[in-house]
Amino acid sequence: MKIIDSMLRTHPRADAQRVGHYAQVLEALAQCAQVCRACADSCLAEEHVAKMRRCIRTDLDCADVCEATAALLVRQTETPNEIVHAQLHACILACQVCGDECEQHANMHEHCRICAETCRHCQERCNFLLGEISSSGVEEGTMEPTDSPSFQR
Amino acid sequence: MKIIDSMLRTHPRADAQRVGHYAQVLEALAQCAQVCRACADSCLAEEHVAKMRRCIRTDLDCADVCEATAALLVRQTETPNEIVHAQLHACILACQVCGDECEQHANMHEHCRICAETCRHCQERCNFLLGEISSSGVEEGTMEPTDSPSFQR
Amino acid sequence: MKIIDSMLRTHPRADAQRVGHYAQVLEALAQCAQVCRACADSCLAEEHVAKMRRCIRTDLDCADVCEATAALLVRQTETPNEIVHAQLHACILACQVCGDECEQHANMHEHCRICAETCRHCQERCNFLLGEISSSGVEEGTMEPTDSPSFQR
Amino acid sequence: MKIIDSMLRTHPRADAQRVGHYAQVLEALAQCAQVCRACADSCLAEEHVAKMRRCIRTDLDCADVCEATAALLVRQTETPNEIVHAQLHACILACQVCGDECEQHANMHEHCRICAETCRHCQERCNFLLGEISSSGVEEGTMEPTDSPSFQR
Repeated sequence: MKIIDSMLRTHPRADAQRVGHYAQVLEALAQCAQVCRACADSCLAEEHVAKMRRCIRTDLDCADVCEATAALLVRQTETPNEIVHAQLHACILACQVCGDECEQHANMHEHCRICAETCRHCQERCNFLLGEISSSGVEEGTMEPTDSPSFQR
Repeated sequence: MKIIDSMLRTHPRADAQRVGHYAQVLEALAQCAQVCRACADSCLAEEHVAKMRRCIRTDLDCADVCEATAALLVRQTETPNEIVHAQLHACILACQVCGDECEQHANMHEHCRICAETCRHCQERCNFLLGEISSSGVEEGTMEPTDSPSFQR
Repeated sequence: MKIIDSMLRTHPRADAQRVGHYAQVLEALAQCAQVCRACADSCLAEEHVAKMRRCIRTDLDCADVCEATAALLVRQTETPNEIVHAQLHACILACQVCGDECEQHANMHEHCRICAETCRHCQERCNFLLGEISSSGVEEGTMEPTDSPSFQR
Repeated sequence: MKIIDSMLRTHPRADAQRVGHYAQVLEALAQCAQVCRACADSCLAEEHVAKMRRCIRTDLDCADVCEATAALLVRQTETPNEIVHAQLHACILACQVCGDECEQHANMHEHCRICAETCRHCQERCNFLLGEISSSGVEEGTMEPTDSPSFQR
């Protein structure tokens, strides 16, 4: 999905320095959301579906959280940094919990193995981005806007 | 949307003690998501739309975050508490930031006044629920599952 | 969720004649989406979950379709009528198929009974609205814009 | 996003013959949803935002419709064909209308040019898939289940 990289760069207020990181995270989030939904549906079709309840649950939660996070990160106009930070944090957790759950079934189900890997990749990408934007003068978790005049991404 | 209350109570693993709180939060989240999307669209139709950019942005972010939060909270099977906590936290922030932004336009635009109020109500409901579930033995923000045997909502 | 009615009326281009119908549909869609997601999760927690596979599937599909439909209908700016018509049509079908499926389990599971009723109500509301807007000079299913000058809802 | 192809193939009920087509459509839908949301946000940041109202509207609608369509198509368990057909139809229309709108601004705004192309690609992929699954014995638009015993994708 390299096209999202080109797309972000055409934004009137594109952050040239970080747009590549955002594009990579957005690609990882779109992939993770689809793979998690596919994993939930594969688990549902398994013979021993009763054993896959927690995996289906974490798959669906992770997919929903990834999609919301992507919707926020794709926007570059007047970014409310504190919301983005908190949502990224929730997303990192969702990917970790879902990745851990899927890993437990990775030997039995190939779809869980692929899903665990996809969650790990997404978690790493989100974690890296959170570090990048946190170190740039916006304190994570603060409720106050920074004193920078623009308050944009 | 009282029907969501009845619905949650029919769940095989319903948490009878707290199901009423969940229903109220779910109703507030559905309302807030729709009102925020409507506010973004009303702002877009305003004559001085250029002044409403940040309001449109926070409206859309808040709507996306509310919808993801509702999707998680409507589920009662094998709840991954740490994800739910982090997502509720992000949602409280989104409602606060969007409510603050809308309030600044409340005198000019009735849709912003209604949206600010709706965000406040949703924020309060989410905040109350976060307090409820945090005080019940699950440490907020912890990555470790509790030692309770069930690990369910 | 009466607040959505007030909200829609504050839109700079509100269609005063039909805003009440839109509000009722939006309320039904938000309710149906949440109830369907709750039903899917309740089915997943049932002892004989393997028998509920098709119900879980139609629940999730109906919820996703209802949410997308609501996102479109809440907007009143420059409405692309042909998309709205086609999406309403898909939504009516989703509610019908999910309602039929849930009805088959209504005697066994109270959550399926409530979900079937909620789907019926939403289907009726969407059907009524589709009739309303189809009879107002926009041919359903046509790909060509009407020759009305405004082309807005 | 080749990983979605591998993922779909691991499903216990994977349709080996068509899984490649589904993967291509899913990739196109994820891309189109993100690009449309990015285009809406870029339009919002343009100096003459008042002229971009209809473009923002069709971008947001197309993104919402694409996401719902992807959520349905990623599932392979007990597929309700008539819902999938109707949703694909709505998606083809959304991509067409949004692509047409963006094309009108393609000379002025590079983001609209990329978005128009992305919508065209997604429309073609969805159109091809609709043809594929329609020609396989399921009448498009029928409300009755087929008499095939499995009624699955």
